Amino acid sequence: MLDLVRSLAVDNTTKIVLLSLDGLGGLPRPETGRSELETARLPNLTALATVAACGLLRHVAPGITPGSGPGHLGLFGYDPLAYQVGRGVLEALGIEFDLRAGDVAARGNFCTVDASGLITDRRAGRIATDACVRLTERLRTIRLPGVEVLVEPVKEHRFVLVLRGGGLSGRLSETDPQALGKAPLPVRALEPAAAHAAGLVNTFIEEARRRLADAAPANMILLRGFDQLPELPRFPAVYALRAAAIAAYPMYRGLAKLVGMDVLKTGGTFADELATLREHWQAYDFFFVHYKDTDKAGEDGDFDAKVQALERFDAVVPSVRELGPDVLVITGDHATPSVLAGHGWQPVPALVWSRYCGADPVTAFTERACAAGSLGVLPAHHLMSLVMANALRLTKFGA
Amino acid sequence: MLDLVRSLAVDNTTKIVLLSLDGLGGLPRPETGRSELETARLPNLTALATVAACGLLRHVAPGITPGSGPGHLGLFGYDPLAYQVGRGVLEALGIEFDLRAGDVAARGNFCTVDASGLITDRRAGRIATDACVRLTERLRTIRLPGVEVLVEPVKEHRFVLVLRGGGLSGRLSETDPQALGKAPLPVRALEPAAAHAAGLVNTFIEEARRRLADAAPANMILLRGFDQLPELPRFPAVYALRAAAIAAYPMYRGLAKLVGMDVLKTGGTFADELATLREHWQAYDFFFVHYKDTDKAGEDGDFDAKVQALERFDAVVPSVRELGPDVLVITGDHATPSVLAGHGWQPVPALVWSRYCGADPVTAFTERACAAGSLGVLPAHHLMSLVMANALRLTKFGA
Repeated sequence: MLDLVRSLAVDNTTKIVLLSLDGLGGLPRPETGRSELETARLPNLTALATVAACGLLRHVAPGITPGSGPGHLGLFGYDPLAYQVGRGVLEALGIEFDLRAGDVAARGNFCTVDASGLITDRRAGRIATDACVRLTERLRTIRLPGVEVLVEPVKEHRFVLVLRGGGLSGRLSETDPQALGKAPLPVRALEPAAAHAAGLVNTFIEEARRRLADAAPANMILLRGFDQLPELPRFPAVYALRAAAIAAYPMYRGLAKLVGMDVLKTGGTFADELATLREHWQAYDFFFVHYKDTDKAGEDGDFDAKVQALERFDAVVPSVRELGPDVLVITGDHATPSVLAGHGWQPVPALVWSRYCGADPVTAFTERACAAGSLGVLPAHHLMSLVMANALRLTKFGA
Repeated sequence: MLDLVRSLAVDNTTKIVLLSLDGLGGLPRPETGRSELETARLPNLTALATVAACGLLRHVAPGITPGSGPGHLGLFGYDPLAYQVGRGVLEALGIEFDLRAGDVAARGNFCTVDASGLITDRRAGRIATDACVRLTERLRTIRLPGVEVLVEPVKEHRFVLVLRGGGLSGRLSETDPQALGKAPLPVRALEPAAAHAAGLVNTFIEEARRRLADAAPANMILLRGFDQLPELPRFPAVYALRAAAIAAYPMYRGLAKLVGMDVLKTGGTFADELATLREHWQAYDFFFVHYKDTDKAGEDGDFDAKVQALERFDAVVPSVRELGPDVLVITGDHATPSVLAGHGWQPVPALVWSRYCGADPVTAFTERACAAGSLGVLPAHHLMSLVMANALRLTKFGA
């Protein structure tokens, strides 16, 4: 699809805004039988859905719950099954670590081991983040021959390990046995070329054990999701768009950077993001704008908070429309139903508005209403070609 | 899919009619909010939609605007992305040129170059067709060693170049730099086996330059879309159907011939086509009947003319039903919304009627109504297996 779109993309002066409501989709609350979207008062989204083409997006495959990485890659037009990004890389992106080509990144957990080295807590009692910061400083003192060792705290028991230089392969197994009462596993090379990296990482682990011996409960580490920056087709080149990302959270800035969008400096609130959008309106053709509150409320299992987050979003929709985008897309990267208090596999409502979208019978922006929309149930990575078409930025396929 | 269908196809005496309304799908006119299909009075199509299974067809992929070639290949069951046909071949089919296996065909444009050989008009001011005819006669005098040179006028500045014989490869680059102020590019071989063909074509281009030197504004040529006849699975063999095509326009006859249908001689009007259908009713199992007027009006951006074309079509639907087809399919090869005055990417309404189609809640043959039909949004190349099933011409898959 990316090759096809690249071959058909043409220049135009049209502007596209993609508003991604993180964790948009929900599920009915048993007491009322109505989902968050069905409960919220959303006059602006309702009006927009009435004149837009609506549908449901499926980001990976039926029943597969997307993480934020695959969820957003799908929205950007990359089949998340074809373009997989390891957890180590996602964790590094999530703290806006300047990961470079060739770096091998892993997600680290501090954990607790007993006197025989067997794991008694895989998360070291979720130590406080400031404890995590202090302990990563100990790990930074570890030296390995021929490579630079970078250790960054994330949150609670989590950190990122990056080995830089030396032409390492990141095809390494995980050390977390995913069970209590077992010892951390040594890293194994998953391809012959990774033997050197495996040796270095095992040395790092033994050094970490020594330096953390007196740091119980965080007296050992587990490493998972070794990977390197993938080489993704560049979004601006594929679509012939000057593309900007506006996101308060580092993870989403990192994902946008990964595909080559310009990541704009913005403040910590959605109002800040919208101000950034206005400020840079002339300079770009495509804006990805990220709204986090829906996901946060859903993750907390707080149905009412998610309803309120949706209503707050709805209130600012007119200010985006006033900018006069030629194509306005509103959807999300995955569902976060409050009743699940976590990501869900349910397809996510989507609307595409343009002068040429062809309104369908859908008159509400809800999971149920969008199921009858003219977009059908669409793989998320097919959304961008539709968006490009609505922006009159794709030429005909075949004569 | 074609292999699967071929393996399941069985004989029966049932008859299938596929009525393809070129450019069927439309978009609402801003003044009324109603599309061409929603504006037209279509009592017969409305009645048929009410008892048929309805849906929307997507011919290539979301957002991809199909040309007539890919659009019809999709209707015939061929995935247009898997079976790509070059523009040179489509152009040759469009004038019903007798293209043979191994022929290398290109689409030619007469263009204008200045004294330094730089392009000043890529279409030579769209010269009149009779001027095109005269100039192609000059090009026909060019001789190349070991191959036959065939040049056919198309319309205005367009012509077809065919090289026949010599076991040539058609994997050649285009000469159109797609910009003014540049010189036409030489042809390059896109595979080693095409080096000989590239040399011949470059000789042809230099000879053309000489012969057209005094023919300004049409004093040079550009060549695009080099290709050879693809080897497509034969429609009658795949579906075990005696298949006939009835189309007044050469392009559609050419496409039907490409997949091995019998192309029936017919007159220039849709009434002629229907007379041909009646005449050959006993001799075939499957009829592809093409209606051009909807596309023509849409291409002209003439909303009212498209409405009238739809109403004229509606009026003859009963005469087709009177023939007693077991399966009647009404759809199109792509949208041609009048507001776009060209092909569109929007999915196209489709209805499948048979005794076994299973009527759905759709009671109108419009874009919006069909969005809620039981066919969903269906890849066009999956339509034929559904049609075959409705004709009781497919056996069970697996025991």
